[in-house]
Amino acid sequence: MFTLYMYLRRYDTDHENLFRQESYFHYLFGVKEPGFWGSITLNADGTTTTTLFCPRLPAEYAVWMGKILTPADIKDIHDVDEVFYVDEMEATLEPRVTAASSLLLMTGTNTDSSSTYPLPALPPTLSPLPTDTTTLFPLLQNCRVYKSPEELSLMKHVSKLSSLSHIYTMRECKPGMMEYQLESLFNHHSYYNFGCRVAGYTGICACGPNPAVLHYGHAGAPNDGVIKDGDMCMLDMGSEYCCYGADISCSFPANGKFTADQKVVYKAVLAAQVAVYDMLKPGTNYLDCHKAAEGEILKGLIELGVVVQKDKTVKELVDMRLAAHWMPHGLGHFIGIDTHDVGGYPDGGKYQRQTGIGLKSLRTARDMEENMVLTVEPGCYFIDHMIDKLLADDELKQYVNVDRLNGLRGTGGVRLEDVVAVTATGCVNYTLAPRGVDEVEMVMGGGKWPPVKDNHPECRREGLLNM
Amino acid sequence: MFTLYMYLRRYDTDHENLFRQESYFHYLFGVKEPGFWGSITLNADGTTTTTLFCPRLPAEYAVWMGKILTPADIKDIHDVDEVFYVDEMEATLEPRVTAASSLLLMTGTNTDSSSTYPLPALPPTLSPLPTDTTTLFPLLQNCRVYKSPEELSLMKHVSKLSSLSHIYTMRECKPGMMEYQLESLFNHHSYYNFGCRVAGYTGICACGPNPAVLHYGHAGAPNDGVIKDGDMCMLDMGSEYCCYGADISCSFPANGKFTADQKVVYKAVLAAQVAVYDMLKPGTNYLDCHKAAEGEILKGLIELGVVVQKDKTVKELVDMRLAAHWMPHGLGHFIGIDTHDVGGYPDGGKYQRQTGIGLKSLRTARDMEENMVLTVEPGCYFIDHMIDKLLADDELKQYVNVDRLNGLRGTGGVRLEDVVAVTATGCVNYTLAPRGVDEVEMVMGGGKWPPVKDNHPECRREGLLNM
Repeated sequence: MFTLYMYLRRYDTDHENLFRQESYFHYLFGVKEPGFWGSITLNADGTTTTTLFCPRLPAEYAVWMGKILTPADIKDIHDVDEVFYVDEMEATLEPRVTAASSLLLMTGTNTDSSSTYPLPALPPTLSPLPTDTTTLFPLLQNCRVYKSPEELSLMKHVSKLSSLSHIYTMRECKPGMMEYQLESLFNHHSYYNFGCRVAGYTGICACGPNPAVLHYGHAGAPNDGVIKDGDMCMLDMGSEYCCYGADISCSFPANGKFTADQKVVYKAVLAAQVAVYDMLKPGTNYLDCHKAAEGEILKGLIELGVVVQKDKTVKELVDMRLAAHWMPHGLGHFIGIDTHDVGGYPDGGKYQRQTGIGLKSLRTARDMEENMVLTVEPGCYFIDHMIDKLLADDELKQYVNVDRLNGLRGTGGVRLEDVVAVTATGCVNYTLAPRGVDEVEMVMGGGKWPPVKDNHPECRREGLLNM
Repeated sequence: MFTLYMYLRRYDTDHENLFRQESYFHYLFGVKEPGFWGSITLNADGTTTTTLFCPRLPAEYAVWMGKILTPADIKDIHDVDEVFYVDEMEATLEPRVTAASSLLLMTGTNTDSSSTYPLPALPPTLSPLPTDTTTLFPLLQNCRVYKSPEELSLMKHVSKLSSLSHIYTMRECKPGMMEYQLESLFNHHSYYNFGCRVAGYTGICACGPNPAVLHYGHAGAPNDGVIKDGDMCMLDMGSEYCCYGADISCSFPANGKFTADQKVVYKAVLAAQVAVYDMLKPGTNYLDCHKAAEGEILKGLIELGVVVQKDKTVKELVDMRLAAHWMPHGLGHFIGIDTHDVGGYPDGGKYQRQTGIGLKSLRTARDMEENMVLTVEPGCYFIDHMIDKLLADDELKQYVNVDRLNGLRGTGGVRLEDVVAVTATGCVNYTLAPRGVDEVEMVMGGGKWPPVKDNHPECRREGLLNM
C-alpha cells in the first residue's frame, strides 16, 4: 500500500505550487490529483487486485475545482479493479490481511538523494495489523530501473520533443539577448506545441563563462547574463510529459560559428559521447563508461595544448584522475519519472559509490542491462576552483601547460547530454539534436532539421531522418 | 530575528523546485538564496542595526553553484549594516540580549490560510535567552498591509507588464487552440520580455464552460480544453517580479465578437468593478464594496432575464444573498509579496470573517486605508452546483426565470480582475488592460493598444495612454 503527500503550501501562505504526483505513486497508478491512496492485493489464487482510494470531496468542491469524479469515473480512467473512498480503506483492507499475510508499506531511503520516503500514517484499525516496511521500497525501486515498452515509448517521445525545443531555441539565439530568454523560448516551445506544462528540472542557460557553473540557473544565478558575440552557450533543459522527463544539453556558439578552440573542446566532448555509445550494452559497467569519456576529454585537452602527455598514456592520465578537473561531475544517471531516477546504487552492496572528483558524483556504478535508460553527458569546463586545485597539485601540474590553461579561464565550457536506452545488443539515442560541429553550424545558419542524411551515425540517433 | 526554510525536495528524490524566498524574509532583506538568517537590533540609543547571517559554503560549492559571495559582497548587495556567517550568529547576538531586552522571534498563524509560520530552531546558546514569540508576527503582518512608495512602484510595474502579456495572449487566441497554449503564450511573453521567471500563481485559462470552475487550471483540470468558436475565454494570470505579483483576469470572446448574452454578462461585471472604484477610498469598508459589486451583477442578470425583480429592490435581493449564486467568491484580496497577501483579518477581533456564500470567501472585511493594494475581481458564472442549490431554495427561486437560467448552463462566465491601490482620496487601477466591450473587440481585431484616447476613464487606469 502506498500513499502520497498532499499539496505543499509555501510557508504560511496559501500559495500552492502546481501539484506533481509522487513518482512511485505515479508509476503504479498514474493519478494526477492529490489525496489518493492505492493498494495492490496479492490474492491467494495468484491473481492481483488493484485498488484506488479517492478522497470524498464536499459538494462545494465542484464550484472551485470542477466536476467531482465518482469512484466509477476513476475506475474507468485509471483501469484499476476497484475504487473506494479513502474513508473506506480500513473496512476494505482489514479483512484482506490475515494471519498468513501482512501489509507491505512503502518507506525507505533513496540511496542517491539520501531523502526518505516516509512511512504513511495508517488509519487506526489498520495500525495493529502485521506490517512489512522493508520489502516494497527496494522492490519497486528495482522495477523502475527497467523501463517497459510503454515507458520507453514515452521517454522517446519526450526526448524528441525536447530536442525540437532545443533546436528552436538554438536558432533564435543571438548575441545581445539575455540567457533567460533562451529558457523562455524553450519552455514556450515545449508547452505550446507539445503540452509539456513543466520542465523536468530548473533550466540551465549558461553562456560565456557560465557553463563553468555546473548547476547555473538556480535562484542565486537565475540565467541573468547577457549573451555576447563569441560566447559558447550551454543549455541544459528537458521537458516533462506524463511525468516522464528528458534531460538534454546542447552547446553551440552564440554567433553560429565555432572558434578553433571551441571546436576542439566541443569535438572532444562529442568524442566522449561516441566512445560511450560504442561500449554501452548489457554487461558494460557504467564506471568504465565514465572513464572512457574522461579519456576522450583528455585527448581534446592534449590537442588544445592544455594537457601535456609526457611519458604517460591517456589511460594512465585518466587513472591519475587528471581529466576530472575539467569534468568534475558524473557521466550520467538513470532517468525516468525522476530526472535523477532511482536505483543507481541498490541496497545489497554490490555497487558502491566511488570516492574522488567526478567518480563520487556518478549516480550509478552498475553493470548495464537491457531497458535501462540513462543520460550520457560528458563535459569539459574551465572552472577556476578546479584549475586552482589542479595547479596546487605538484604531481598533476607537470602534465599541464599552465599558461595555456590560465588563458582559457572564463571561457566556460561544453556539455553534451543525451537520453540513451540500453538495448539487447547496444544502445539507442533518443535525443535527436544536432551533434556534429557541421550540424550545429548548419542549424544555427537556418539549415533544415532533421537533415536529409545522417552525417553522424555514430551518435545512434534512432529515427532521426523521420523525426 | 527571522529565518527561512531551505529548499523543499520532492518526496524522496533530489528534485528541487526553483527556490522562492519566504515572503516575510524577502520583505525585510530581499535575499534570493536559501540558508540565510536575519536580525534587526533595536539599540538603546534608538538606532537600529540590520544584520544578515549567510551560510558558510564549502569551497567546492563554487563548482556547482558559482562564485561564493563573501560577507562583504552580501553587505554591498543588500545594504545591511553587517553580515556574518550563520555559525557566528550565537556569538553575535548573545551579547546583545541583556536582561532588559529579549529576542523577538517570528512565528504565528496566517489568519487567511490558517498555515503557520513555525518558530525557528535556535542555536544552543541562544535558546536560554528571553524570547518573545507574539510581538513580531502581527507587527510585520501589519507593516506588509501598507505598501511603501517603492512597493507601489513595483506593483505598478508588474501589473502593467502582466497587462501587456494578457493583451498579447488575447490577440493570439483563436478558436481551435488548446487552453494551455494561452498559458504558454502569457508566461513566455512575461518572461521573454520582462524577465518574470515565474507566475505569481498557477494560471487559469478557462474557456467555454470552464470559467464556471473557479480554480480551473489545477493539476486535475490543467487547462486542457479545446477553445471553440462562440466560447467566452476567462484568463486569470499574473506575473511575479522581484517577488511582487500581479493578479489579473481578462474575459473575451474567443472569436473576437461578443454575443448579445455575453455582452450583458460582461457589462454587468465591468459595472461591478466601476461601482467599486466609485466608492473605494479611505474609510470605505470592503464588505460594502463586495455588496455593491453584487448589486451590479444582479442588475445584469435582471437585464438578461435570469433574475426577476418582482417587488424587491436590488439591495433587498443582495441582502437575500441572491447574487452570490453567480459570484460565490469574494470580491478581492490584498496583494503584494503573496498573491493572497497578509493582514486581511488581523488579530484583535475588529474584523471578523462573515458567513454565507461569497462573504465567507472574502479575504478581508477591513476599512480601506491609503496605500493598501487589493484586487477587485467581480465575476458572474453559471455553475451547475450553484444553480441547483438556488433552484432548490423555494424562497429565492421565485426571483429566477428557471428556463432562462437553465438555458445558460454550460456557458461558463466572466471575471474581470484588476490590481488597485487605495490613495488618499480614492483609488488608482494599476491594470492597464482593455475593459470596455468596445476596447476588447478592438484589441481582438488587431487595433492599437494603448488606445489614443481613454474611452473608459471610469476604470481609473492610471497612465494608460503612456503605458
